Amino acid sequence: MSQMLQEIAEQPTALAKTIHEEQGKVKRLGEFLKQRGVELIVLVARGSSDNAALFGRYLLEITTGIPVSLSAPSVYTLYGAHMKLSHALVIGVSQSGEGEDINRVLETARASGAYTVGITNEPASSMVHLVDETLLMHGGRERSVAATKTYTGQIMHFYMLARALADGAEHQAKLDYERIPEYAARALELRPAIEAMVERYVFMENCVVVGRGLAYASAYELALKLMETCYVVAERFSSADFLHGPLAIVDRHFPIILFAPPGQTLESAKVLMERLHELHADTLAITGDEAAARMCTRSIQMPGSINEFLAPIPYIIPGQLFAALLADAKGLNPDAPRSLSKVTRTL
Amino acid sequence: MSQMLQEIAEQPTALAKTIHEEQGKVKRLGEFLKQRGVELIVLVARGSSDNAALFGRYLLEITTGIPVSLSAPSVYTLYGAHMKLSHALVIGVSQSGEGEDINRVLETARASGAYTVGITNEPASSMVHLVDETLLMHGGRERSVAATKTYTGQIMHFYMLARALADGAEHQAKLDYERIPEYAARALELRPAIEAMVERYVFMENCVVVGRGLAYASAYELALKLMETCYVVAERFSSADFLHGPLAIVDRHFPIILFAPPGQTLESAKVLMERLHELHADTLAITGDEAAARMCTRSIQMPGSINEFLAPIPYIIPGQLFAALLADAKGLNPDAPRSLSKVTRTL
Repeated sequence: MSQMLQEIAEQPTALAKTIHEEQGKVKRLGEFLKQRGVELIVLVARGSSDNAALFGRYLLEITTGIPVSLSAPSVYTLYGAHMKLSHALVIGVSQSGEGEDINRVLETARASGAYTVGITNEPASSMVHLVDETLLMHGGRERSVAATKTYTGQIMHFYMLARALADGAEHQAKLDYERIPEYAARALELRPAIEAMVERYVFMENCVVVGRGLAYASAYELALKLMETCYVVAERFSSADFLHGPLAIVDRHFPIILFAPPGQTLESAKVLMERLHELHADTLAITGDEAAARMCTRSIQMPGSINEFLAPIPYIIPGQLFAALLADAKGLNPDAPRSLSKVTRTL
Repeated sequence: MSQMLQEIAEQPTALAKTIHEEQGKVKRLGEFLKQRGVELIVLVARGSSDNAALFGRYLLEITTGIPVSLSAPSVYTLYGAHMKLSHALVIGVSQSGEGEDINRVLETARASGAYTVGITNEPASSMVHLVDETLLMHGGRERSVAATKTYTGQIMHFYMLARALADGAEHQAKLDYERIPEYAARALELRPAIEAMVERYVFMENCVVVGRGLAYASAYELALKLMETCYVVAERFSSADFLHGPLAIVDRHFPIILFAPPGQTLESAKVLMERLHELHADTLAITGDEAAARMCTRSIQMPGSINEFLAPIPYIIPGQLFAALLADAKGLNPDAPRSLSKVTRTL
C-alpha cells in the first residue's frame, strides 16, 4: 500500500488529535484578535496549502464578514511592494514551514504591523520563528509527496479559527467541526467502491474538476492530486466561471468531475450537470444528493447527511482515494511523482 | 477575416481613444479616493474581465501598497455574507455591464458603505445605474464572443487608476501608459510570423500557459482564448505554482507557452525554461529577451524595449493573434465558439 493511501486513512485520527491539542489555543487567539480588531485577513501559501487557504477564504468571509485576500507572494518577494497591512491578520500556511517565499511574505507583513500566524506541520521549522503565533497539525510527519492529511489538517485550523472569530451564534452553530473526524471515517468506507471504479478512468488524459463556494477548494485540490499522482491534465473551475468561456472545450465524452454537496451551491451544480448532459459529456458526481447523482454518468455517493459547512473534509476523501487508486491502476507510484520533491523552493 | 481578428487590430486606436476620453475623469476619481481614504480594494468580475482584474490586482498592490482582494461572488450572492467593507473601494469589471452576479456584489457592497466603481463597455448598462462612478471603454461594441479589445481596455483603466492612486513619483514614472497604443501597433506587426507558426500547433490538444507577477494575468487570458476559440484544454499557472505539483504532468513534447517579459520575473521564467528543457517539453516563449528565446523550442520575439509595467497589453496581442489564427487553421470560427453566447448569466 502506498504511503499516500496510508496517510489518507490516518485522517480521522489526525483530525481528532489536532482538534484536541489546538482548540484551546485557537479560541484564545480568536479572543485576542477580536480585541485587537482585524479589518482584513491575508492568506499566503503554495500548492495544496494554497488550496486549503482557498477554502479558508470562503469560510472566513462567510462566517466573519472580514474581507480575505489570497496573497500574491511575488508582490512582496520580487516587486518589494510596501503593503499597508497594519490592520491585517496575515496567515501563512505551509506543510514544511520552509517555503522561502511564504516566510518572506510573513516577515515583511509583520514588519508592516500585521499580526502574523503560521499553520504548519513542523514545530521546529523556520516559519515558527517568524510569526506571532503558530498553529500546528498533529497527524505526524507526512511522507508522501502528495499532501493529504496536512491538507485536511490545515482546513481544520480554518474551522477552529472561523468559530473563534465568527459573528453571532448562527454561524457558530454550523461550525460543529467536532463531527468531522467521524464523517471522515465514514468517507473512508468508500474505498472498495472507488477501487472498482477507477479502472474506467485509466486512459483519461485530461479532465475538468468543478466545485463552487465552500466546495471550490475541493476542485483545486482534486485537480492537483490528479496532476501530481496520475499526470492527468486536470483543470479546475467554479461552476459559474466554467460557463464563462471554458465550457467550449467540452466535447462528447469529455470527463468532468463535479463536487455537489448539499446547500447553497447545489442548484448551480445541477444547472451545469444539465448543460453537460446535453453536450454528452462524461460526468462523475461526488454528492450526497440522489437527484444530482442520477444526472451524471457515474457518481460517488457520500454516506449520511452532512451540512455544507462541514462537507469539504469528508468530500475530499473520495477524491484523494480516487487519485491514489487511479495512480495505482495506471502503474504509477503516487508517493514519488516524476519531477517533484516534498519541499519546493521558489521565491 | 474573423471579427476577432478585426477587433484585435482595432486595439491601438481603441486604447488611444479610451485614454483620451477617460484620463481626466480617472485622475479626479483618484484625488477623491485619496481624500476619502481606501484601505482595501475589492475587484469583482468573470471570464476575461476577471483576467483583467487579476492584472489590476498586481498593478494596484505593487504601485499603491493597498491590499487587493479578488472577490468570490458566491460569498455575496449565494451565502449572503455581511461583508465589512466601509473602508473599501469595490470595482466591478464587465464588458456588458449585465453580469447579474457582478452587479449583485456591487449593490451589496455599496449598501455596506463601500465606494463602488464600474468598468464597462456599455454606457447604458445595468451596472452604470448601480455604481458611484463609471469608467468606460471607448473602442466600440465588441461583436466576437472572445473578448480582446475590451480586455485591453479594462487593463488600460487599471493603469490610469494606478497612476492616479500611486504613492510617489517612482511608480508614477513607470506608468507612462500613453506609450501603450504605439507598442500595441508594433505588436500587431507580428501577425504574418504567427500565421506561419500556428500550423505547427494544429493538433495540440492540451497545453499549459505560464506567466508570473504582472504577466500572470496574460497566462490566464491566453489560456481562456485557447479554450474558447481552439477548444484546447489549456491550464494556467504562475511559474512558481507550476513547480509546486503540476510540473508532474510534463512529459516529452508536452506543450508549454511562457510569457517572459523583461523585469523582476524573467529570472524565474528562465529557471522554469531550463527545467522544461531537461524534461524535453515543447516550449514557446513570448519574450523580448534573446537568451530566453534561445532557451525554448520556438519563440515569438517582441519588438523594441518595453518596461515590465507596460508589457501586459503588447504581450497579450501575439497571444490573441495566436488563438485567432490557430482557430482558423483548425477550421473553427473564433467568433462563435460552440456552447457559448456573448453574455453569460450566472448567480
